[in-house]
Amino acid sequence: MGATAYERHRALLHDVVRAMAAGECRMPFTAATGQDAADAGMRSTRTAAKVFASLLGRPFDLDQPGELGRVATEFSPYGIAMGIGYPHCDPAALVAAATRATAGWRAAGPSERAGLAVEILRRLNTRSHELALAVHHTTGQPPTAALRAAGPRAQDRALEAVAQAFAESERVPADLRWESARGRGRPLEMRGTCTLVPRGVSLLIGCADYPLWNGYPGLFASLVTGNPVIVAPHPRAVLPLAITVRVARQVLAEAGHSPDIVTLAVAPPEERLHRRLATDPAVRIVDFTGAARFADWLEQNARQAVVFAQRTGLNTVIVDSTHDYRSLVRGLAASLCRCNGRLRTTPQNLLAPAAGIATDEGRKSLRDLGADLGEAVDRLLGHPARVARLVGAITDDTVAAELARATRCGTVVHPSQALRHPDHPHADVRSPLLVRLDARDERIYSREWPGPVAFLIGTDSTAHSLELFRRTVGRHGALYAAVHSTDPLVLAVAEAAALDAGAHLVQNLADDLPADPSSGGSDLPAGGAHFVTGRFRVVRSRRHVAAAA
Amino acid sequence: MGATAYERHRALLHDVVRAMAAGECRMPFTAATGQDAADAGMRSTRTAAKVFASLLGRPFDLDQPGELGRVATEFSPYGIAMGIGYPHCDPAALVAAATRATAGWRAAGPSERAGLAVEILRRLNTRSHELALAVHHTTGQPPTAALRAAGPRAQDRALEAVAQAFAESERVPADLRWESARGRGRPLEMRGTCTLVPRGVSLLIGCADYPLWNGYPGLFASLVTGNPVIVAPHPRAVLPLAITVRVARQVLAEAGHSPDIVTLAVAPPEERLHRRLATDPAVRIVDFTGAARFADWLEQNARQAVVFAQRTGLNTVIVDSTHDYRSLVRGLAASLCRCNGRLRTTPQNLLAPAAGIATDEGRKSLRDLGADLGEAVDRLLGHPARVARLVGAITDDTVAAELARATRCGTVVHPSQALRHPDHPHADVRSPLLVRLDARDERIYSREWPGPVAFLIGTDSTAHSLELFRRTVGRHGALYAAVHSTDPLVLAVAEAAALDAGAHLVQNLADDLPADPSSGGSDLPAGGAHFVTGRFRVVRSRRHVAAAA
Repeated sequence: MGATAYERHRALLHDVVRAMAAGECRMPFTAATGQDAADAGMRSTRTAAKVFASLLGRPFDLDQPGELGRVATEFSPYGIAMGIGYPHCDPAALVAAATRATAGWRAAGPSERAGLAVEILRRLNTRSHELALAVHHTTGQPPTAALRAAGPRAQDRALEAVAQAFAESERVPADLRWESARGRGRPLEMRGTCTLVPRGVSLLIGCADYPLWNGYPGLFASLVTGNPVIVAPHPRAVLPLAITVRVARQVLAEAGHSPDIVTLAVAPPEERLHRRLATDPAVRIVDFTGAARFADWLEQNARQAVVFAQRTGLNTVIVDSTHDYRSLVRGLAASLCRCNGRLRTTPQNLLAPAAGIATDEGRKSLRDLGADLGEAVDRLLGHPARVARLVGAITDDTVAAELARATRCGTVVHPSQALRHPDHPHADVRSPLLVRLDARDERIYSREWPGPVAFLIGTDSTAHSLELFRRTVGRHGALYAAVHSTDPLVLAVAEAAALDAGAHLVQNLADDLPADPSSGGSDLPAGGAHFVTGRFRVVRSRRHVAAAA
Repeated sequence: MGATAYERHRALLHDVVRAMAAGECRMPFTAATGQDAADAGMRSTRTAAKVFASLLGRPFDLDQPGELGRVATEFSPYGIAMGIGYPHCDPAALVAAATRATAGWRAAGPSERAGLAVEILRRLNTRSHELALAVHHTTGQPPTAALRAAGPRAQDRALEAVAQAFAESERVPADLRWESARGRGRPLEMRGTCTLVPRGVSLLIGCADYPLWNGYPGLFASLVTGNPVIVAPHPRAVLPLAITVRVARQVLAEAGHSPDIVTLAVAPPEERLHRRLATDPAVRIVDFTGAARFADWLEQNARQAVVFAQRTGLNTVIVDSTHDYRSLVRGLAASLCRCNGRLRTTPQNLLAPAAGIATDEGRKSLRDLGADLGEAVDRLLGHPARVARLVGAITDDTVAAELARATRCGTVVHPSQALRHPDHPHADVRSPLLVRLDARDERIYSREWPGPVAFLIGTDSTAHSLELFRRTVGRHGALYAAVHSTDPLVLAVAEAAALDAGAHLVQNLADDLPADPSSGGSDLPAGGAHFVTGRFRVVRSRRHVAAAA
């Protein structure tokens, strides 16, 4: 390879580190479009489609230890036959292989690890369209959303994790020196070394909706801080992570490292693989994004590990007042429709005063707001082409029952209807359900609902909305929170409430956000540096300098 | 106060931050001796003795909320009557007061908090001799050791925690700005803020041996990262932390803050106060240094909190070979005697090949080493004055029974004998017990023994010693580990084993260390930055910039 990966990617790494420290954002993969991307080796959509097709109905080879057989767990909601046979490996063999790889990976040091991580991302970048197809066909996301969640943006997000892990590692001083005043005679001169010690084997539990977007930060933060990673995808969304693991193993092997620093774990559901691996004594780090219930289980049972659990929770929008009612309605309607309500920014709970809101079109009652939202949804979904672009297909078979159940919880403002996908007539595509609730119905809306379910919740006042927001999100988490108000005081109080609830807040973003709005700045889960520094410890070694001054 | 505390201490803070990043060590409090210390306001030993005497046999006033009465839990092993009545406050009232103080302390921001923390340390520094007397009379440590554990060195250690917490806080960028590429039309310009959000109420569980040395890092790291702290001392060692809390409350109140940002929690033993507070839903951080058993309990039960538990564990010395046998023996003997075996660097387990070690005085069998250690101990403790200076008095009444038990575990190399303290004839002072064991006796030496108990353990080889070290310390932790060898290969392997075990290692430090050797460099518990970054999260707020470019 000539120059090491670190030498090749050093300037990029340092640039990202500097930008993050300044509160800026570098998105080199996202910024490179068109010819730039092609020059960087990104395969065309046509090539990607061929590569993707060549994967279907065949074994997916990884040459991993402990292979027991093959397992296929995926189906495409768009009806193509996946039939990809992943290696079914003995979990104990995967853990043992990762453990064996630990010493060599620790010895590689942070620079080499960060360099190789960037190299892995660069190669993943060339396969962005292939990864997008894998996400499209496993999660049901429409193609554009899949590219966003699987391609350059996800790689840039991973690059932030790499840069932050690299920066934190660089911060550990290599050499220590000091004098120990002894109180009698000459001082004792001491020298020492400081060593970053990775915690140990890391487990990434993949999620069904955003396997790469949610999975990359933990995967790359663990790798750069020296921890081998076992990647255990959600059974419904294996392929995107399997491709990622294959690329990582290739890059590692080419650089002379054990490929078992990154392995893929897939098993038939009855093996309860995630629980088995998460409680293995050798697994010391667990990353998970998803439902609060499994996050709670992990925190209670994976006692030997540090658990980084991001609870998807109760995305909430507080509506107080607006200068631009049309944009507000259009934006909310689009958020409700996108990706069958599974977008990271889809609100489940819309909190608004039952007495209505002040707008540039006069006062709007809660009934007006509900009706306008319903009409905007119908307008958006009136064209089959737009349905294909926006909505995507449902993969989770519990959704139908949950929609029926939600319908009985309150007044239906907009019913969920089956929609026709122009290209995939058998795909399960549905418009969002919007149900009006009262603030008293907390036990309904303080639960995380799957699929396109949202509640329009009438409160006593915006102050009451903020109190409910603080309480429900503080308890159950949220990936996304937003406030709409023309009153600076309300915005300030909302900001304070978001701080108390520990949620990221977006203010008056009138239009909806095709780009994930949590990009920008250091966007790691689990609130900052701890997400990285919790993956290692620093151990010092000291020695007496014989010829002391 | 004129200038704010931050303005006054800014240069010092930045200097310490810079030095830590470079692997150097600033010890401004330790460096200021004699006239410098007096100029900085340090009270003389004579004044300190008067102040200390004035505290005895009286209520200790703190003016805290929820006071139910008074409680006295201490006795001096040197026989003076303590009789200090601490406020016994309703734990729920202390938690509620800390919770109320949270918002104001968060709003103060990192600079002000760090400035006030330095101001607290500066005031504690003026009372170093008073704090040393408090430690001497509660822990039984001899006066010099008590000054070391309670005075300038402990303040310098706390200053490192302040500087590291300040540096980590400063690293959070205040403003974020980026463009969200929208894929259609103009990019959306975004602005945001990044806010450090403290985790919440912090609990410091004090230890009996080193209440300030072990307590300060967590106390000050929590304060500077914005968390109010409830200080719950060990019932046998309340006074050092009570004085600390009083000083902190004074500094906070003078600066216009709620004094309840720092409170003292003491209760009669039957209230099980530590367990009660550690599992209070509002307590979000717990610091503890001590026995693995209670550390395990905390990690299993204080589920709502981040637990920073430092296990005192199995201090271990690996003896392979030496160029200076006399110094080795003298140093080990002194370590065994100091502070009744409760020094942070006292080894419990000495691992050496049963076949003996190579030295500058020829080969020494394990029996030689044991006999020489025993003689060196007797020589050291031959003078009552040296006993007073070195050994200290035992406070823990389980020690006598444990010594008798340890005596029955193997061949006694040096028996523990009652010694006479020249000034305090009734103090319980004992020489160290050294028992020879075999490597097979792992269930004996893999337990943490209280008091002056050490084992000389014969192994098959140094490789075997290293394997035992790796396993026992890896499982039970250790505050201290050392290796003596003339072979660079053994030193390198020992360093790797220490990394695996997660212990700090000292190499060939021939003489014993009156100064705590873990000073120097960033000496925070729990291995580095995580000790600070685990106390807060970073929450971002975003808004759309209306007049986008």
